[in-house]
Amino acid sequence: MQPDLSCFFHPESIAIIGVSRNSSKAGYGILKNVLWTFSRTEKIFPINPKVKEILGLKVYHSLKEVPGNIDLVICFVAPRSIPSLLKECHQKGVKGIIIESAGFAEAGKEGKAIQEEIGQLGKQFNIRIWGGNCMGTVTDELITTFEPITADMRRKGVVSIVGQSGYFSGAVILQLFTERYTGIRKAASIGNRIDIDECDLLQDFLKDEETEVAAFYLEGLKRPRKFLKLAKEFTQSKPLICLLGGQSEVGRLATLSHTSSTAHGSPQLLSDLLKQSKIIQATEFGDFFNILEAFAKLPLPNGNRLAIVTITGAGGVIGADIAAKYNIKIPEFSESTTRKLQKLFPEWMPPKNPVDSWPAFEIHGLDEALRQIIPILCESNEIDMILLMIAAMQVAITFDPTVLQDMQKYRKPIITYIVGDNSIKYLWTSQIRSNGGVVHDDINTAVKILDLMASHSLTRET
Amino acid sequence: MQPDLSCFFHPESIAIIGVSRNSSKAGYGILKNVLWTFSRTEKIFPINPKVKEILGLKVYHSLKEVPGNIDLVICFVAPRSIPSLLKECHQKGVKGIIIESAGFAEAGKEGKAIQEEIGQLGKQFNIRIWGGNCMGTVTDELITTFEPITADMRRKGVVSIVGQSGYFSGAVILQLFTERYTGIRKAASIGNRIDIDECDLLQDFLKDEETEVAAFYLEGLKRPRKFLKLAKEFTQSKPLICLLGGQSEVGRLATLSHTSSTAHGSPQLLSDLLKQSKIIQATEFGDFFNILEAFAKLPLPNGNRLAIVTITGAGGVIGADIAAKYNIKIPEFSESTTRKLQKLFPEWMPPKNPVDSWPAFEIHGLDEALRQIIPILCESNEIDMILLMIAAMQVAITFDPTVLQDMQKYRKPIITYIVGDNSIKYLWTSQIRSNGGVVHDDINTAVKILDLMASHSLTRET
Repeated sequence: MQPDLSCFFHPESIAIIGVSRNSSKAGYGILKNVLWTFSRTEKIFPINPKVKEILGLKVYHSLKEVPGNIDLVICFVAPRSIPSLLKECHQKGVKGIIIESAGFAEAGKEGKAIQEEIGQLGKQFNIRIWGGNCMGTVTDELITTFEPITADMRRKGVVSIVGQSGYFSGAVILQLFTERYTGIRKAASIGNRIDIDECDLLQDFLKDEETEVAAFYLEGLKRPRKFLKLAKEFTQSKPLICLLGGQSEVGRLATLSHTSSTAHGSPQLLSDLLKQSKIIQATEFGDFFNILEAFAKLPLPNGNRLAIVTITGAGGVIGADIAAKYNIKIPEFSESTTRKLQKLFPEWMPPKNPVDSWPAFEIHGLDEALRQIIPILCESNEIDMILLMIAAMQVAITFDPTVLQDMQKYRKPIITYIVGDNSIKYLWTSQIRSNGGVVHDDINTAVKILDLMASHSLTRET
Repeated sequence: MQPDLSCFFHPESIAIIGVSRNSSKAGYGILKNVLWTFSRTEKIFPINPKVKEILGLKVYHSLKEVPGNIDLVICFVAPRSIPSLLKECHQKGVKGIIIESAGFAEAGKEGKAIQEEIGQLGKQFNIRIWGGNCMGTVTDELITTFEPITADMRRKGVVSIVGQSGYFSGAVILQLFTERYTGIRKAASIGNRIDIDECDLLQDFLKDEETEVAAFYLEGLKRPRKFLKLAKEFTQSKPLICLLGGQSEVGRLATLSHTSSTAHGSPQLLSDLLKQSKIIQATEFGDFFNILEAFAKLPLPNGNRLAIVTITGAGGVIGADIAAKYNIKIPEFSESTTRKLQKLFPEWMPPKNPVDSWPAFEIHGLDEALRQIIPILCESNEIDMILLMIAAMQVAITFDPTVLQDMQKYRKPIITYIVGDNSIKYLWTSQIRSNGGVVHDDINTAVKILDLMASHSLTRET
């Protein structure tokens, strides 16, 4: 039986239980996001026994007053009121319910009992349950979180991301949108996983052609065998990134009061299993962003041969040192490539890899030097990927980030490293990122990401 | 014999050879920086046979025309003209010369021969030689680099930093000033080290009470035994951070065309030796900034017991997982501390370490919650340091970074981690950093830095 999540991602009608007129309350935020994103406005039904109208919509006193069937219910109400709500849902033919309120198993004994009751009722009534203690969904056609997401942040993308923490549909997605300019295909905060879990989502992504990269933050796998099997299938053609929280003893205890997850078992065993399914593991949020952003934006390299193009000798030395720790080669250039590059360099400076391009840049200007050096490297079959290192200075260097945009046609991944004056660095970083590029301010991360991309590319072929 | 670098850091008079009227040239930049920072304007002597006046100063045709003795000569002229210049210097009683131009051993055979000749002449005439292929010095009273450093970037600090690369006095120092707000005590770009090397500088820092943190980027140690001996002495009371470039084979080759340094020998052996001298090793520039910024700004912890204060359960879980990889403890709170914290939390949420403070923040607001939680932790003797995790959101969270400033009086290191909306993150980060705080956007770095500080503190006591 294929799980069908279409009631969550493509519902026909939506009821929101516990709406509020107070704009700082979740019940207001959810309604506002749904109203803004769901195309069938006439099929949005806010419910609150004490209110008549919100945001221009008629408010119903209860679910049963709503005319016709309802596909999806979203609720932010006290846990103890949910069992009776489920009975009403059953009568209205509801297919799925998103429970965003907290206070379930993560909050103690009483919450745990209610959580179990809700799970059983869901099965009994054949209603899929999403959450609780979660922040819902973000897609191009429907946002059900309470955290406001504004129009200028929204960007259609290829990454589908699942987080067990509500945090993931809030801060993390904001960071992806506003800092990395990485659009979202589907974002799903699944919280305590009363019913819907990561396997349901991964199965959904497997069928979804528009999902090109999948990323999961999980505090324990609910059905490890199933997940690894699905992952193996997914990673045959697409990258899958996992960040697993709660692998240490203290971390595991913290998950209990967070999403009430069970432990992963031995971290080493788990890590080996993930590796077998070709899952790319992240160590923390920063790492998680870095990896999924790169896979979402950059073409895959054909191999692991790196050229470092730098305007600082020290950067080239450090970059080469770091590459040596990974499965990355920094090949010497062939005679033909050296000859092509030499035309840009003074005679006393034969270009080598790492390419210290300061002398070329002094002759031609940085933009023009890069406009010539990068295509020579991209067009050669000696190099699979490029690490470009530049320095942000007020006077000595002028650099136009659109130079890099022009290089996208060569279909080789380029990661930029910038050091220097903060305001210039911030500007260039935003410009590069918003135009589909990847930039980091530490060399280790840049090299590590290139290594992950090369490894993914190389293992896919075997 | 104690080396005396006072002619470089506190000269009585300065001649600049090869000044230029073209503001994009190094010969202009050096003069401008000296003129701006050196208090004895009447003792600055620009030299250029073809020019009469620059920036309101009389230009001399040659060194010998300058009236009286000269302490320090700075030059940006072709290498082959330097041997005869040194003879003139000798006649004028010059004590030290900074050679910022390139084209010495790093550029090939001919350059190497000139470099050797210059070294011998320096010894013969008893003139200390700084460089070549470097970017000079930055201190509070004298800037001799050609990269312009503006008034708003300059900030007196406690870090003395030595870089073999010119890059270090340019981009790196800009980043420290403008991004980290880490002032500089002394910055020294020593390039090819014809004479002055890292040992001279470390010896200078040992005598300098205002240097509280020393940091070196080196592409090979020139006098390893001497350096390690001096380091052992320095690290008895102050932290010393090293970034060593050229430890891999490719990296080593790259150093040859960069600063023409010899290799370090076995990386593992070297690393062990550094550890014996209690030197803190950085892996690359980002790491280097992170470490020296923290040691420059934060008080040392008394031990390795960490409290994590977070508004996201997921952050607490990941933070605890990372801490488990280091020598960091996340102790359970005593009954007394728990009781004090409990007053801020709802009954259903007993505060534990990591402290998921969302419920407290919902009741009191984030700022007020932190204003109460952090002092409870700082005043307890159970906790040595704090990792604070916040999320930057447009609506759900309002946070005033000055809350953290008020916590500085407790003299325990606090590192903040921020995830979320880019523009808010950028603003909060700048505010925290400019007020003496440390903030990171990846948890791993934050935890790693706390671990380094705790280790430094603990080993110092033994």
